Amino acid sequence: MVTSFDVARLAGVSQPTVSRAMRGDPRVSGKTRAKVEDAARTLGYVPSAAGRALSSGRTSRIGLLVTDLTNEFYHRMIGPVVARVSERQHEVVLIADDGDVDAVITRISSLGLDGVILATTTTDSMVPYKLRERSVPFVYFNRVAPAVPADAAVVDVTVGLTEMVEKIVAAGYSKVGAVLGPGNATTGTQRAEQLFALLGEHGIVVPSSYRTQGDFDVVSGSGGFRTLMALEDPPEVIVCGNDVVAIGAVNEAVRTGVSIPDDVAVVGFDDLPEAAWPVFSLSTVGFDLNDLVRMAVDLLFDRIAAPEAEYRTQYVTSYFVTRSSLPVGP
Amino acid sequence: MVTSFDVARLAGVSQPTVSRAMRGDPRVSGKTRAKVEDAARTLGYVPSAAGRALSSGRTSRIGLLVTDLTNEFYHRMIGPVVARVSERQHEVVLIADDGDVDAVITRISSLGLDGVILATTTTDSMVPYKLRERSVPFVYFNRVAPAVPADAAVVDVTVGLTEMVEKIVAAGYSKVGAVLGPGNATTGTQRAEQLFALLGEHGIVVPSSYRTQGDFDVVSGSGGFRTLMALEDPPEVIVCGNDVVAIGAVNEAVRTGVSIPDDVAVVGFDDLPEAAWPVFSLSTVGFDLNDLVRMAVDLLFDRIAAPEAEYRTQYVTSYFVTRSSLPVGP
Repeated sequence: MVTSFDVARLAGVSQPTVSRAMRGDPRVSGKTRAKVEDAARTLGYVPSAAGRALSSGRTSRIGLLVTDLTNEFYHRMIGPVVARVSERQHEVVLIADDGDVDAVITRISSLGLDGVILATTTTDSMVPYKLRERSVPFVYFNRVAPAVPADAAVVDVTVGLTEMVEKIVAAGYSKVGAVLGPGNATTGTQRAEQLFALLGEHGIVVPSSYRTQGDFDVVSGSGGFRTLMALEDPPEVIVCGNDVVAIGAVNEAVRTGVSIPDDVAVVGFDDLPEAAWPVFSLSTVGFDLNDLVRMAVDLLFDRIAAPEAEYRTQYVTSYFVTRSSLPVGP
Repeated sequence: MVTSFDVARLAGVSQPTVSRAMRGDPRVSGKTRAKVEDAARTLGYVPSAAGRALSSGRTSRIGLLVTDLTNEFYHRMIGPVVARVSERQHEVVLIADDGDVDAVITRISSLGLDGVILATTTTDSMVPYKLRERSVPFVYFNRVAPAVPADAAVVDVTVGLTEMVEKIVAAGYSKVGAVLGPGNATTGTQRAEQLFALLGEHGIVVPSSYRTQGDFDVVSGSGGFRTLMALEDPPEVIVCGNDVVAIGAVNEAVRTGVSIPDDVAVVGFDDLPEAAWPVFSLSTVGFDLNDLVRMAVDLLFDRIAAPEAEYRTQYVTSYFVTRSSLPVGP
């Protein structure tokens, strides 16, 4: 059986360097890693995960914690996360957070993960506290819990929302409704706050009768759309908390024979692949999901390598995508 | 620190029984497992994954191998797989098969997984051969590679397709087109064979000009729909290889102003949640995905416990769901 010592000999490095290189330790230079990988390939060397856990005190796995594995948005991120983590020679363990914090923390601890990506953090979640208590490195993805500072990869919504509001104003709309995301998710609250502030700059106020709030799901979108369109004086455009919500709104429009954008315009957020489907043709705020994933994974690996470094928040920018659900003119 | 010996003492069992119970070994009875879990909970005992790997020669992880993490169908199965595997005290490691068989096998070997769920097997894949060679337990999910016999959890399409064909005949259609799935996936070929046989019993032949074939994706559905509807004498109904393909077909219909079902009816397969959306309202063949997942996971655990047992294929039944994309009468 080929061992890491054989690889070390062929690569002309020490055995600990081989171990470090094979587990993606950032202290190993790219050049050295390439030499080690070449040697490993030549010899057909397969490092054993159990052996690696033993020798390093670490397994080489990253946990991805999500609360809702049925949500389209998280589906979209799983592929890029697996790709990026694999590039760094680690594996992804999926952890479903069913709301039982102690159970989740016990599972994370018993797995001895290198670090955890938190993808569905609510502002009231105890998970970040408990991970910090146990010194488990983690990174916030897309959503943060401000009470527990940590590394975060998030979307800067300013550019996309500014463009959205300009398009709404240019189309001549003044009656703007909103089907908002949950109040305990920063992705819900920050988008809403910025949206209302930007509309306010154009003299547009969104009254409370024009607002509904719910989960980031199609049911919330359908229900919110129904509520707003049942008003005596319904809005001319409905801004949805995200694309999944907007998909629910468009479905409700089709079900009830309401024409988009003739009867009411609809906009979303996230630019999911579904937004481009002709059945939706959804105007929406987009951002580069692959960049966001890369950022989060790299922040997490940096944290693992340097547990005491200062926390960083990194941003991907946003942009607006115009499709037929929000027309250019009224 | 609480050890497995403390748990054994409190539960009144041996330490190896505690280890076996905590890793979900089927040789431990439900009653004994409950006793051990109670004791572990009382003492706050957290088994260490690395320790478990050492003591048992096994980690406690199941790999889920998929080729296409962007496909809606596989999104839908990830949640149920994580839920079922968690119930059995194991974790799910996601493995993306990018087509490099040696790399995939190397990763699976180095992880020391208990077993692997193969969710996107093609009939020409080398992965099942190589797993068998290395004595890695695996189970086929939904699709199989007939050349390498193994445990399999698959859909019995007969009932659903029979109902579909009866509905097509009852609606008075005789010109039936098909946008088929890939020829190297049993889910593609078996559905097509059964469909054509059942239509043949009613005297309906699907000429080759009425057939297109492609991947299980929306692009294939849009392209196939376009090709068939461009024929001088287009079909009256288009049967799609699965719902993702049908979604592509409906999108193309909307894009080109073709009315479903007035101009052409469309049917799918899988009954994804999207099929019920009013924008699609897709008639389709359904089956219980949770049952299929449970079956596959349980077959895999049985295989791990009894490597020499005979291979089994288990089936979930199918049914037809009528929505407006296939009308009841012509």
